[in-house]
Amino acid sequence: MAVGENTFSTLPAVAGFRLGTASAGIKTPGRKDLVVMECAAGSSVAGVFTRNAFCAAPVQIAKAHLAQLSPEHASDAEFVNTPCYFVINTGNANAGTGAQGYADALAVCESVAELAGVEVNKVLPFSTGVIGEPLAVRTLTQGLPAAMGKLDEDGWRDAAEGILTTDTRPKGAFRQFDIEGKQVTVTGICKGSGMIKPNMATMLGFVATDADVPQVLLQQYLVEALECSFNRITVDGDTSTNDSLMLAATGQAGVTVDAESDSAVLLRSAIIEVCEELAQAIVRDGEGATKFVTIKVAGGLSSQECLDVAYTVAESPLVKTALFASDPNWGRILAAIGRAGIADLDADKVKVWLGEVLIAEREGRAASYTEAAGQAVMDEEEITIHIDLGRAASAGEKGVTETIWTTDLSYDYIRINAEYRS
Amino acid sequence: MAVGENTFSTLPAVAGFRLGTASAGIKTPGRKDLVVMECAAGSSVAGVFTRNAFCAAPVQIAKAHLAQLSPEHASDAEFVNTPCYFVINTGNANAGTGAQGYADALAVCESVAELAGVEVNKVLPFSTGVIGEPLAVRTLTQGLPAAMGKLDEDGWRDAAEGILTTDTRPKGAFRQFDIEGKQVTVTGICKGSGMIKPNMATMLGFVATDADVPQVLLQQYLVEALECSFNRITVDGDTSTNDSLMLAATGQAGVTVDAESDSAVLLRSAIIEVCEELAQAIVRDGEGATKFVTIKVAGGLSSQECLDVAYTVAESPLVKTALFASDPNWGRILAAIGRAGIADLDADKVKVWLGEVLIAEREGRAASYTEAAGQAVMDEEEITIHIDLGRAASAGEKGVTETIWTTDLSYDYIRINAEYRS
Repeated sequence: MAVGENTFSTLPAVAGFRLGTASAGIKTPGRKDLVVMECAAGSSVAGVFTRNAFCAAPVQIAKAHLAQLSPEHASDAEFVNTPCYFVINTGNANAGTGAQGYADALAVCESVAELAGVEVNKVLPFSTGVIGEPLAVRTLTQGLPAAMGKLDEDGWRDAAEGILTTDTRPKGAFRQFDIEGKQVTVTGICKGSGMIKPNMATMLGFVATDADVPQVLLQQYLVEALECSFNRITVDGDTSTNDSLMLAATGQAGVTVDAESDSAVLLRSAIIEVCEELAQAIVRDGEGATKFVTIKVAGGLSSQECLDVAYTVAESPLVKTALFASDPNWGRILAAIGRAGIADLDADKVKVWLGEVLIAEREGRAASYTEAAGQAVMDEEEITIHIDLGRAASAGEKGVTETIWTTDLSYDYIRINAEYRS
Repeated sequence: MAVGENTFSTLPAVAGFRLGTASAGIKTPGRKDLVVMECAAGSSVAGVFTRNAFCAAPVQIAKAHLAQLSPEHASDAEFVNTPCYFVINTGNANAGTGAQGYADALAVCESVAELAGVEVNKVLPFSTGVIGEPLAVRTLTQGLPAAMGKLDEDGWRDAAEGILTTDTRPKGAFRQFDIEGKQVTVTGICKGSGMIKPNMATMLGFVATDADVPQVLLQQYLVEALECSFNRITVDGDTSTNDSLMLAATGQAGVTVDAESDSAVLLRSAIIEVCEELAQAIVRDGEGATKFVTIKVAGGLSSQECLDVAYTVAESPLVKTALFASDPNWGRILAAIGRAGIADLDADKVKVWLGEVLIAEREGRAASYTEAAGQAVMDEEEITIHIDLGRAASAGEKGVTETIWTTDLSYDYIRINAEYRS
């Protein structure tokens, strides 16, 4: 189940970024489960990773190898003048696997490095799937020649399918813009549908651009994009041991981006838009999702208190089951706001809208509200819950607004997670 | 659905505490939905209430009236020498009802006061049920003479049924002990099965003893009992606008309890045990519950970090669905521990047991673990997840341990909450 239509469209190639996909048989024979991505020599690479204290072996290695790709470490010309690689498997997260898991992830990197003729620390590993099972290294590495043999700038679609687990559809997004007559492309794919929550969750994302961007700037753009995209979604409040989001810039479009230039503004926007679209695609494909819900909290004194309220509402099982039932049960929304931990919240000043319909104010149902009006909003597949905390106004200020995206909680969420050993 | 057998047994009377139950037809005709309780003149009364910012009208009034019952306010002999009353309705929470809700709750108190011949501030109101609907005051008050006509010290069973909403069974507990040849009784009932979470949640509890206890001491015992019982349970992480727990001491057993006496130790234990048993009964009757799960977190540096880990595991939808599936999916438990927000957690030192079976250590599956051993524990209806954070040991200390109780997450939870307008 998922919200809306599968809108995956053909993704434009990014010069210098090639993708190859194979079916190694890691968990399910015949299923695409192994992807290799190649960033041409000279690319800048940025990455952000899960903050879960149980950080999977591949994440530990990807972080370490990424640090070695940064300019201050890459003084060796031979090191710089080779491509770098991402190797992604599904079917096994290689998490909760202790020292053996670390050795296994490193063995996979070594195998890619050998086939590609690069040093091992130019290979970054990513895994998603079941936690706590030993990685089938041999099965995986036997699939590597097939994946690398297919490396192609037009390999986005297969790769988008090859990184999926419980997802029901591939997820991709792109933006293109012109700078001085030259076209710049930003293309990305991601996977994730359960265990989704701020600070990323079982989510892998790979975005590439053909602009030429210094690594420090690229990392900054990635963190900014993350903050208003993948860190603003929640399906079930669970976060994973394996989340990773990578951004590569190959520089092959012939456009150089400096921090203060027009091209920087355009590129930054494009990266943010791609990440937002990818993040929302994860929510639309949330496990068992039948609704796509935007929660907007305004009138707060700080970003944090707006987010606290937004996530408490978004993760309330009672609100989520009411959304599943298309029930305009604003009482549950009020109750969730009330327990979000804002000590001095003045309940009398809080207002709540479903879509454009004011449903609650002054601690009760709005006088103008009708059940029919609320029901009409709830019957839609895409619903906005708009909450005004009324705190900034009383302080004579404009106030802070935060927006997050989430889903309902359905029978199918239970079925998927009771039956799937993740 | 509920865990274990319905073990409701005959509850012993508490001299001076009478209960009367009626079917007023507030929501469902013929269902017991109105309960009046009477604490004989001279009783001490203690109470604790929800911390939700949207605090229902009856809670606001119960708090205000309780304050007026305290010794410093009760200098008027005529005021002291009358009984006080609790009036409880189900079918409507009278929450999210604004100023009208307040007036309605007060009107109910006035009606009880008139029938009983006491001042209105000797009546404390409690409501549970749907949020945001106007209270049917007339329907309710028309049922009051029937409820008050049945006031009886043996009315516990009917009252235990009369306060239920989505509960599948009445919940009661008692303890009796002797002091200097005189028997002291502590008897209590409660309701609640969804929206359950620390700081109480849609939960009403009424406990009475025939010991003679000063109000200040009674309030202290209630807060202590609350902390290790109702504030240690979670079903879905939602808390309610209406939670209230009351404790009355009628003094009619002829036993006076002073802070430092043996009787104080015995009474305090009895109150704690009754509250623990009632709280656990709520979890066992959790909406859609098929498992009763004890989560024990040891080796922490503070109570708070143990509770943070315990609640993150207890409220993880992925852990809860694995419990429903009887799946020993320890990877999900590790992932939940890892995201509990303990910044400097050393994942390598964390150990996890299912029952007596060590399942995970050193960031991976324990060498001694077998799937069969884990499965045997998960197949039970009552499961203990024991987590050692390994932080106190490294600091050379004994460490803090906290225990909470929770349920799994089943199809029935969705069904109940998607269909019931709470």
